[in-house]
This record gives sequence, structure tokens and C-alpha cells, in this order.
Amino acid sequence: MDISRFEMGPRFSEMTVVDFGQGKLIYLAGQVAEDPSLDITGQTRQVLGFIDRLLAQAGADKTHIVQARIYLGSVGDYVAMNSVWDDWVDPAHTPARATVGAKLINREYKVEIECVAALPKAGA
Amino acid sequence: MDISRFEMGPRFSEMTVVDFGQGKLIYLAGQVAEDPSLDITGQTRQVLGFIDRLLAQAGADKTHIVQARIYLGSVGDYVAMNSVWDDWVDPAHTPARATVGAKLINREYKVEIECVAALPKAGA
Amino acid sequence: MDISRFEMGPRFSEMTVVDFGQGKLIYLAGQVAEDPSLDITGQTRQVLGFIDRLLAQAGADKTHIVQARIYLGSVGDYVAMNSVWDDWVDPAHTPARATVGAKLINREYKVEIECVAALPKAGA
Repeated sequence: MDISRFEMGPRFSEMTVVDFGQGKLIYLAGQVAEDPSLDITGQTRQVLGFIDRLLAQAGADKTHIVQARIYLGSVGDYVAMNSVWDDWVDPAHTPARATVGAKLINREYKVEIECVAALPKAGA
Repeated sequence: MDISRFEMGPRFSEMTVVDFGQGKLIYLAGQVAEDPSLDITGQTRQVLGFIDRLLAQAGADKTHIVQARIYLGSVGDYVAMNSVWDDWVDPAHTPARATVGAKLINREYKVEIECVAALPKAGA
Repeated sequence: MDISRFEMGPRFSEMTVVDFGQGKLIYLAGQVAEDPSLDITGQTRQVLGFIDRLLAQAGADKTHIVQARIYLGSVGDYVAMNSVWDDWVDPAHTPARATVGAKLINREYKVEIECVAALPKAGA
């Protein structure tokens, strides 16, 4: 077993990867929009784009996500968030998911998403 | 390593299972009551029943839960939720647990529970 | 694969450990301050001290944390919490992290932290 970190800052890493030999578990930091002036649709798109980008660095993609946790600044944005999520997620490889309302750190953030992915070793 | 999904919908799966050969990690979606008109006692019972039912599909049970996360619509329901939890949980196999207040997606939901379980391979 | 529990009570355990042979995954219960009359600085110090103490019981330390989730009673405490976190975390081994505002169970609690750590087997 071996731990690696991606986009590591002195406070947190955007992604940590635990390599078990026959596969990896991948933990993503809570992702928020780069542009908090966007509406829920725009912010959700940015967040899901960041997840795609991070997973790619570990050789994984959205089909490997096993658990996602979505925090909404306003639960009234559930339908609009889901509309973007539904377009993005692979319907044949959906993760376990939980969505709750929470106060996000920046008052302008409307959505934050955390996830865990599992990447089997190629050929294993 | 191998990933399987249970009660998979196009948006999320109720359970994902990562098989490591010598055992499995099991991720459950946030479970909420089927009947949101129930009080906190009734909703907690339904949620814990759903967890039992899902884990059974993976060959596991509540003694395998290693982490549980409980979201309460009102923190004032902590004592009543715990009363049902305490009757349900196996006191010799209790998980790490966190409980926080959060806005739940449906205004009538009073409790949502997520969990991770670990199931050793029989005979391993 | 083998599961062990530390500081196990009949309701929850403070820590559960899943041993995969070549390493362990360690799940900590949400940690809160022992003295809720402390300010955010004092509470964060106590919480991080509890995390150190628990991880040590599993032979791990803060450099093994792969995921941390921080709940703040008031998002206005973000800067003060980070100041204590930044002094504590090993800047060369930072976890994936998410921080959100949530209602904590005791009105006096200002911060609660959950984490997952990965401990490779010595010599593996």
C-alpha cells in the first residue's frame, strides 16, 4: 500500500490516492466552482469538470466513482443541479450518492461535491 | 479489484461494492424514509431497515459497518434518533459515527444516513 | 481482511480499522472538543489533539490522513480554524479536505472533524 497526493498545497491536497496493488482508492477534496458568480447550472458544470480533470490525473474517470456527496447552499437548487449531473454521469456506472443542504464557505458558492473512486489495476 | 452496483438508477446507485479479493468495501447512498410523514422514530426505523436490506444484498449486515454519517433535519431530534439507533446497532460492533444537522432535500425528511461497511471474504 | 474497533461504546466507536494485509484503512468518528466553552481556536486544537491520539492507537499519525471533513458551526470561523489547522498539518502530507457549515449537535460546539487515514504495512 502506498499513498500519493495530487495538487498538494500546504493546507490540503485536491486528490489523494491509496494504491492497494490490485487497485486504487481515490479521495477528492470538496470541489467548488472557480467562478462563484455563475448560477447553479454553471457552478455544477465547473465542479464536475474539475472532478473529471482530477480523476484523469490518476488514470481514472467518472465511471470509477463509487461514492459522491453533494452539498447545496440552497436545497431549492436540487432540480437544477440534478439536470447537469444527469447529463454528466454515466447512467451505467452511477455511484452511491448523498445530497444535503449546508452552508458553504463562500456565500456565493452554490454547490460543493466530494467523491471517492475505485480504480482496478489494468489487467488485474 | 472489481466494482459492482446495486439498485442502480441513471442518477445514482443505492449501493456500490469494491471487491479487493480478500474482502469488500461497501458504500451506501444516503438513505431516507419512504414515508416522510413519519416522525423521527418512524423515519429512523425505516432508514435503518433500508440499510439492513441493502447490506444483505452484498452478503453483509450491520456488524460490518465501519463508518456511519447521520444528517438530522433538526438537531433537537438527536435523542429520539439515538433511541432507535441504540436498539438497532450491535453494541459489540459499533461503527465510527458522525452526526450533524443539515437541510435535507425534502422538507419533511427528518433524518438521512450514509454508511461504509467492510466485509471480509469468508474463510480469508 | 479484518475489522477492529477502538474506544468502542455501545452507540459508536471512536475509530474503526480495516486491515487489508498490506495496509489498513482507518475511519475516525466525528471529533468534537471536550470543553465546548473554548473558542474556535481552542476547540480546533482539542479536536486535532484527539485525532493525533486516536491515530496513534492504530500506529498511524496525521501524515496518513487521506481525507478530512470539517464541519463548522459558523462559516465565519473558517479563517481561525485554518490557522490552527495550518500549524498542525504536515504540509508535505496534506489530505483531501472538505469544509462546510452545519448545525452541530451541541449548540456550543464550533467545529467537528471526521477523517479517513491509510496506513501501509511496515516493510510492505
